[in-house]
This record gives sequence, structure tokens and C-alpha cells, in this order.
Amino acid sequence: MARIGFVGLGNMGGPMAANLLKAGHELNAYDIVPAALQAAEAAGAKAVGSGAQAASAAEVVITMLPAGQHVRDAYLGPDGIIVAAEEGALLVDCSTIDVGTARAVGEAAAEAGKDMIDAPVSGGVGGAEAATLTFMVGGSDAAFERAKPVLDAMGKNIFHAGGSGNGQAAKICNNMILAISMVAVCEGFTLAEKLGLDHQKLFDIASTASGQCWSMTNYCPVPGPVPSSPANRDFQPGFTAAMMLKDLRLSQDAAREFDATTPLGAEAAALFGLFVGHGNADVDFSAIVNFLRGTR
Amino acid sequence: MARIGFVGLGNMGGPMAANLLKAGHELNAYDIVPAALQAAEAAGAKAVGSGAQAASAAEVVITMLPAGQHVRDAYLGPDGIIVAAEEGALLVDCSTIDVGTARAVGEAAAEAGKDMIDAPVSGGVGGAEAATLTFMVGGSDAAFERAKPVLDAMGKNIFHAGGSGNGQAAKICNNMILAISMVAVCEGFTLAEKLGLDHQKLFDIASTASGQCWSMTNYCPVPGPVPSSPANRDFQPGFTAAMMLKDLRLSQDAAREFDATTPLGAEAAALFGLFVGHGNADVDFSAIVNFLRGTR
Amino acid sequence: MARIGFVGLGNMGGPMAANLLKAGHELNAYDIVPAALQAAEAAGAKAVGSGAQAASAAEVVITMLPAGQHVRDAYLGPDGIIVAAEEGALLVDCSTIDVGTARAVGEAAAEAGKDMIDAPVSGGVGGAEAATLTFMVGGSDAAFERAKPVLDAMGKNIFHAGGSGNGQAAKICNNMILAISMVAVCEGFTLAEKLGLDHQKLFDIASTASGQCWSMTNYCPVPGPVPSSPANRDFQPGFTAAMMLKDLRLSQDAAREFDATTPLGAEAAALFGLFVGHGNADVDFSAIVNFLRGTR
Amino acid sequence: MARIGFVGLGNMGGPMAANLLKAGHELNAYDIVPAALQAAEAAGAKAVGSGAQAASAAEVVITMLPAGQHVRDAYLGPDGIIVAAEEGALLVDCSTIDVGTARAVGEAAAEAGKDMIDAPVSGGVGGAEAATLTFMVGGSDAAFERAKPVLDAMGKNIFHAGGSGNGQAAKICNNMILAISMVAVCEGFTLAEKLGLDHQKLFDIASTASGQCWSMTNYCPVPGPVPSSPANRDFQPGFTAAMMLKDLRLSQDAAREFDATTPLGAEAAALFGLFVGHGNADVDFSAIVNFLRGTR
Repeated sequence: MARIGFVGLGNMGGPMAANLLKAGHELNAYDIVPAALQAAEAAGAKAVGSGAQAASAAEVVITMLPAGQHVRDAYLGPDGIIVAAEEGALLVDCSTIDVGTARAVGEAAAEAGKDMIDAPVSGGVGGAEAATLTFMVGGSDAAFERAKPVLDAMGKNIFHAGGSGNGQAAKICNNMILAISMVAVCEGFTLAEKLGLDHQKLFDIASTASGQCWSMTNYCPVPGPVPSSPANRDFQPGFTAAMMLKDLRLSQDAAREFDATTPLGAEAAALFGLFVGHGNADVDFSAIVNFLRGTR
Repeated sequence: MARIGFVGLGNMGGPMAANLLKAGHELNAYDIVPAALQAAEAAGAKAVGSGAQAASAAEVVITMLPAGQHVRDAYLGPDGIIVAAEEGALLVDCSTIDVGTARAVGEAAAEAGKDMIDAPVSGGVGGAEAATLTFMVGGSDAAFERAKPVLDAMGKNIFHAGGSGNGQAAKICNNMILAISMVAVCEGFTLAEKLGLDHQKLFDIASTASGQCWSMTNYCPVPGPVPSSPANRDFQPGFTAAMMLKDLRLSQDAAREFDATTPLGAEAAALFGLFVGHGNADVDFSAIVNFLRGTR
Repeated sequence: MARIGFVGLGNMGGPMAANLLKAGHELNAYDIVPAALQAAEAAGAKAVGSGAQAASAAEVVITMLPAGQHVRDAYLGPDGIIVAAEEGALLVDCSTIDVGTARAVGEAAAEAGKDMIDAPVSGGVGGAEAATLTFMVGGSDAAFERAKPVLDAMGKNIFHAGGSGNGQAAKICNNMILAISMVAVCEGFTLAEKLGLDHQKLFDIASTASGQCWSMTNYCPVPGPVPSSPANRDFQPGFTAAMMLKDLRLSQDAAREFDATTPLGAEAAALFGLFVGHGNADVDFSAIVNFLRGTR
Repeated sequence: MARIGFVGLGNMGGPMAANLLKAGHELNAYDIVPAALQAAEAAGAKAVGSGAQAASAAEVVITMLPAGQHVRDAYLGPDGIIVAAEEGALLVDCSTIDVGTARAVGEAAAEAGKDMIDAPVSGGVGGAEAATLTFMVGGSDAAFERAKPVLDAMGKNIFHAGGSGNGQAAKICNNMILAISMVAVCEGFTLAEKLGLDHQKLFDIASTASGQCWSMTNYCPVPGPVPSSPANRDFQPGFTAAMMLKDLRLSQDAAREFDATTPLGAEAAALFGLFVGHGNADVDFSAIVNFLRGTR
């Protein structure tokens, strides 16, 4: 078992920390929100007063923060995690952030002689609670091997996507494809409605044909064909539209920064921007089917 | 075995007719292109001089024509198939056309007391040759039941999508989702390239995650992950970009005519319009990955 | 002065007929809506019982109908205007319809030895009432010259755009550019708001720079810079979003039918489709600025 | 006359510096490219060895650099222009960069007690040479008043767009509208071609109607109607496609950073990304008309 410093105990970090404790690890935990810190204490973590304190004397440091700027602030500088962490510590950032920041912070860690991986997750709050998250990891083979046992306590599928930043790259690319395919499936169903074609009929055909996508067969945006999908419970998330928009904007930032052209990614980002701008930040992202129909 | 009149013996109709002959049916065949007609004769069909002749004395009439106007011309009017067909004949249009025409012609058949189905196909020339086509059928239950044995000789999956025109609707909706998801997967891979993420790594992750689509797992637009995909043989079709554009334009016509809003379908149609306009009509549609990269 | 048969006396046709009467022309008028017919009678027209009756004994027949199918129904067939009109009559269709129908009906008229022009208008209800409409005319030089004096009674700018169908073509192309540029200007102003740049400042700069468009300098979608624009009166039309969507759909039909690629036209059509689908059919089309903001 | 430090003597900065010398100002000039520095010397500037040297002893410092990072590097830090400049110096950044960087650097200058404005330009190399540039200025009223006489030596229209960063905001918004309207006009002309409508006819109509834009009436993308436009000289720039893409990407970054939704801006950026990716970086941006046609 490892001594772990854990910074960022929100909707995702809280359950992830709890699973590490269940697996028998020791946790020094920090979050700027007192209630989140107390919840971690109640689960068995020791509360400390800063990210640097969480990092000192830890063999592994794990962070789960909202954006690239938070990651820079937490890791860099004289009071940051990189300086505070032990020699030989493993640094694990599970935040979903831009590739550029992930690589810059990873490089700073390497220059300080510390292993670091970017390990953003997929699977939402449900996956965090059930310890079934998917981790997409960027970093050296050595750092990946060191991290696996710890990640295994929080997730099911652990992928090594390549060097520093490639975890973020894999998540961004996967989630851009997800967003576009979800809108595609929504457009397919709303067009079918107007043409007098039943939802179930379209599902039966397309789910076994070339139009098949996870967005349809695992997360169908109309009630009925996939009883577990949010469409069956009035679009309670799931995965919120605000989170989907965040990931889409990261994909478009990446496209701009690294000179790729992604026309449908750009359009999907605009559509989710409109959807969220119309007051739908907190519903499941598949509810965009209603926006296309004009009912949300 | 049935006496079948078959009109339209091109890339698709030719092999479909051949499979009906192999199954023991008698065929009276017609096509305006002499070479196509001769090929059908060589396969065992009897060549006749018009669609009406093919239809007379046939229990089942099958058509495979390029567009709605051809279907109207073939079926309607005093020299059309509806008039020429026997009382009690079953009319089967396998063309991919607009829903409005399919329903109008189906209604004309019904008024003349003849069963008719729209039964567009999926599976391309390969599926036509191997008798593994998917049929998406619109029409009454009775007409569907009558048609099944004949369609079974040419295909594998036979779906009843609902009333007249619903076969076209199902195909149009499925193919719109296909087109958008293929572009999404292409954008995912081209963005990954710029971010330094391997094709195989992205495939390993996304194919088992929420970005999964048939476009990726059955028809990957980059060579390697799916050895049977056209990307592995320099994008020889497969399913041509011109065919994909045709289907996308039908989907957008349907959206406008039936008052649905399909933003990504519209954008995918524009992208394939550009791709075909740049000389790529006859390559596999997945080659659009090169267009996004600037190499085609 | 001419004997004119006028069919279609709605929001546009009513005032246009009234201006012809004011100019001293005799009118035989027809509309399927009794109230519209009575209004024309009150203005001095003679009410008749059908389009064919309006056409018989008329030197000039003018129609103002909603769509291509209405124009086909009115002009073609044994009871249509082409048959009923006098030898040597001039046929003037002012409807905004698809180019294909305009050319087909124009050809039928030509085959019957009658001059015909397509002459769709721009300028809205206000322009119809004030006799300041713009006419975009397709047809022969001779037909154009014959029509000019009559059109002058209803409009200000009369353009000869070329042969049959070119009036529709000119209107469709102009209105597609209008729609896209209006959305562009709305995006410019909403982005400026988020960046802390005043509406008036942006207007002062862009209206004299390369971003200048009629959509900005004549019809500014934010209140203030152009006091006469609908934005200053809570977006009362003007030109409704439903009308803009109709024209955009015609442009996309034309692109599809004539094999042109118009990516932003397609996207603008989708955006107006969403805007109208959210209950905004009857507000001025420039109110789409609110849809982009999330406030409508 | 003022002592001016000028950093960045490229295609734009070189002619701008030359016009300041013609107006009688003294220039200390710096550029990392020796040839650019020599050209400035030949025009009468004194060459110095760094940006800081150019800034010291200058009443006004002017910079013209490629991107936000260059501006940060030049102005910030112990060797930067802010530190090196005299007390009371006026700092003028004419680069086109992101609003966030412009405001951050402006704030750093203010904290050091120095006036600073962002003053990006419009008018291209031609405008730089002819001293007819448009300046869009962000900064305090006092700084704007101080800057005007110096800017007048290089430009014609000098606009005060508001506080720090608003010059960049104005340029970004104007240029996003420009890009979208240019594509709109190109789509209008290419659709017209397919419909058989002459370029000149469409121009005559739309340029006096609601489709009018600067992109059409000053910079028509087809040869003929506007003889001075690049279309008449095989699309020699003008304003390159690479520059247009740069500005579009800045607009989309701003939209994402400041939470605005700009669907057509996003699509225009994708289209110019494709156009540049196909080898067209250095042609005039209006040549995208050929890309839509499939001929470039």
C-alpha cells in the first residue's frame, strides 16, 4: 500500500479517494472546499492544509482539478507539488486539461527528477463511485507501470496512450468523436420522427448496420431502446452538457494549437454552446435531442 | 419459385438478378444498357424490350434504378409497370430514392390494387454479389411477408421498417448517421496525428470506449487497425464518395421537405460535396480523411 | 393601361394589386381566401371565381403564390392559366419558388406561344405597400420590356437577371448571402459583448471597414446604431424568420439539384431551422441574435 | 517629433517604420532578422541590438510581432520593454493577438506606471506602405490622445474602441464578419454559376440589395465586377489565406475563452483551415471561391 497525497475532492475526486482508502492506501487529502475535505476525512483520509502538504511525504500524488490553470498553479512554482513532493515520487494528474499544459507540467516534473503521468478519466461520477473508470495515460513506460496498481483501485480499463500529454490527447479525441456521434444519432432519430419511422424500428436497423455507434447502442437519446440511458429518466445526468462542452472546447483548442482541421468538431462545439447557453448546462448531454426538436 | 420481372441491371441490379437466378427463379430482365442486358442473359435471364414487358406476366417485379425520377418514369403512366403488372403482382422497388416519390408511387400501386414495397439496400456491390445485402422495407405486413422469400435470395438481414416509404426513411437516416460518424472518426484520427497520438493507440482506446462507431471498428479510415477496411488498399471502394454524397443529399432533401433540422447532416453533405468536387467521386468515402489532411 | 388578371392576394399580392389599381390598370382578381378577395374588390378590382377566369381576357396575368407546387397547379393543365390566357398574353409569376419549377412552367408557356417571366420580389410587405419592391426578372428581353411598365407600378428597382428562371436564381443567391451575413453580424456583436466591446464602437469601426454588410448598416440586429432596424422595436417584422428559412431551403434545394457546394448556406439554413423550431417563426429574422445569446 | 523605438520590421512593420521616418520622427529599430534591420537602417532608422535597447530613451515604443507569445516575451520580464522604457513612455502594440494577452500586458504596463495601447491594424501591406492603415485602439482616453499623432503618420482611420484589449476585440470581430461574408459571397457566385446566372448580373442586383457586403462591392472574388480585386490578377494577395486563418482562429479562441457561441465563425475557420491545408496559404483569401468550385 502507498502513501498517497490527493488534491481535489469534488464530484470525481471524492469517490476516487474513497476507493483508494477502501483498497487500503493511506491518504493525505486537500481541497479548498471544506465540506469536500470533511467528506474525505469521514471516509478515512487525513485532512491537510495545502496541496504541497498533501504532496510532501507521499509516494504518489494524485490531483483531480477543473482546468489547466489550476494544474499549473498546483504543480509549479516554489510552493507547488513538484517542489514539495519527495524525491522519487510519482505524480498523477487525473484532470482533463489541454495537452500543452499537461506536457509543460510533465516536463517540469521530469526536470525535477520526478515521474509524472497525465491520466484523465472517462466514466463519470458513476464510474468514479463504482471504481470502473477508464484511465487514458500519458507518460513513460516506467511511470505507467508504477501507476497501474494505484489506478486499478479506481478503475477498470487502464490504457497507456503514449508519452506525456497523450492521455489528454486520447480523451480529447475520443470525446470529440462521442459528441459528434451523439448529435448524429439525435439528428437520425429526429429526422425519422418527421418521416414517420418509429424509434424502435430505426434502432433495430441502425444498431446492427453501418450507422451503429456507442451513442446509439449504449446511450440512446430516445426512451425505450436502451432502458438504462438517461433519456429514460428525463435526461438526469449521466454526463452533463456542460462537461461535454468543456471537452469539445478543449478539442477545438487542440485543433487550433496543433493545426488540425475538424469541421464537425467545431460545429458540435457550437451546437453544445447554444444548448448550454439556453439553460441546459446540467442536464445529460444526450438531451440535445430536444434542442434539435425545439422542445428544450 | 416465382416468375420475376427485373428492371435495372447495373452494378447492383446485375448481381442481385444473378442471385435470384441461382435460387431457381425465372427472370424476365430489362435494362436500357445493352451490355447489362446481355450479362443478365448470360446468367440465365430472358431479355425483354421494356420495363412493361418485364412486368407483364410476372408475379414479382423488382426494380433497381438510380433516382426518384427514374422510378416515377418506370412505374407510372399508361406504359408503366403498375399498369402492365398482373393483378395480384408484388412490386418491389430496391432503388434508393426520396421518401416522397416512394410514397407517391406506392399509393399509385395501392390504388391499382397491387402490393408494393420500397426495399432499398445496404452492403454495396460486395453484398449484392455475396447475397448478403441488408434490405430496409416499407409497406404493408402482407406485402412484406410476400416479399421475404424473394429478398432472402439476395440478402441476409431483412427489416420491416413500417409503412410505405419507411424503407427509404430507414436507409436515409442510417446513412446520414454513417456519414457524420465517418467524418467524426476521420477528424479524431487526424487530430490525434497532430497531437502525437498513434492511430493504433487511439483505436485501442476509442473502440472500447464511448467514441466507438461502426465507422471505426468495421471500416477504420486509417490503415492498420482494421485490415479489411479500404484504407488498407489505397481506398479502392467499398462505397464510393459519390454514393455517400447522393445519400446525404437525399437526407437533406428529406429534412427540408419534412421540416427537420439536421445541422451536422447538412455540414457532412457540404464536406462530401467539396470532396467529390475535388475529383474524388470514385474513391471510397472513407478517403475523406485525406481531404481533411490536405493530401487529396 | 392594361387588363390584368391577378391571382394571389395575400400579404404581398394584396398591396401589389392595390398599387396596380392606383396606377389605373383594370384588375380581375382571384384568391382562394374570401377575405383577401373582398379586400381587392374594395380597392377596385373585379372578383372572379378562378385563376383561369382571371387569366382569360387579360393582357397580363400576375401571380403571387406560396410555392412551386401552387405555381404548377395554377399554370399547367387544361384548366390552368397557360391554356386560359389570351394569345399574346404576358404571364408574370412573382412567387418565390425553385428554379426548376420556374423554368418548367416558363417552358410550357413558351410552347403555348405565350411570353412568361419569373419576377420574384424583395422588399417585404413594406415595399409592397409603398410600391418600392425590387423585382429580379428571368425571361426573354422582349418579355422583360413588355413587363417593365407594369412592374414599375409596383416597384422601384427592376433588374433583368437573364433567361427563364434567372429571376429566382438571383433572389435565391442574394437571400442566401443575406442570411449568412446577418448571422455573421449577429455573431460579431455577441462576441463583442463578451469581450467588453460596445455595440456602437463595433458598428462605428466595422461599418466603415471590411466587415461592412447591408445586414449591419441597414438592418443592424442590435438596437441603437440603425434606429430604423427591427431590433429597435422588439424585432417586429420586417422580414420573418419563417420567410428567411423558406428562402434558405430554396437555396439549398438549388445547390443540391444543380450540384453546387454551399457549406455556410447549409449551416445558416440549419440555424434558422433551429430558431424557427424554437417558436420564432413570426419574429424578424434578425432576432436570431437572441438565439445565439440564449435569450430566445 | 518623437523619439520612437520600433520592434518588428517585417512586411507590415518595415513600411510602417518607413512612414514614421518620412514624417520626421527619429527611430531606434530592432528585428531579429538582419535583412529587415538593414532595410530600416537604409530608410533612416538607427539599428539597435534588442527590444529593450529600442525601448530605452524612447518616448514612444511601437511593436509589430506575430503572436501573443512574442508580445509577452518582448514586453514582460526584467529584460522586457516595460522595464526598459522610460518613465512616462507610451507603449503601442500593433500586433494582432489574443485579447487576454493584450489585457495582461496592458495591465503589467499600467502597474509599472506606463501608458499602453493595443492598436492592431487593417489594410494589409498596401495600407502599410501607403500610410492608409486603419488602427483599432484599446486603452485609456489619455493614452489614445497621446498616440493619435504618431498613428496618423501611418494610417488614415484611427478608432478608439474602448479600454485595454478592445482594439484586438474590434479587429477580431470585424475580421470574423469579413471571413464569413467572403465565403457567403463566394457561395453566392458559385451557386449562381450552376444556375446559369451571370456574375455581373448577380453583382448588379446583390450589390444594391440586401446581400451587399464589402466582400462583394470592394473585393469581389470573381473577375470583372470590381477590377481592382485580387480575382482580377489571379488572386495575388491582398490579404493571404494564412492571415485570414490566423484571425479566424483568434476569433474562435476568443469565443471559447469568453463563452460566446459563433457557429458560422467556427465553420469559416474550418473551411479556411481546409483551404490552407490544401496548399493555399499564400494566395489571396478570396481564392477560396476556387476551393468551393473544386479547382484549387
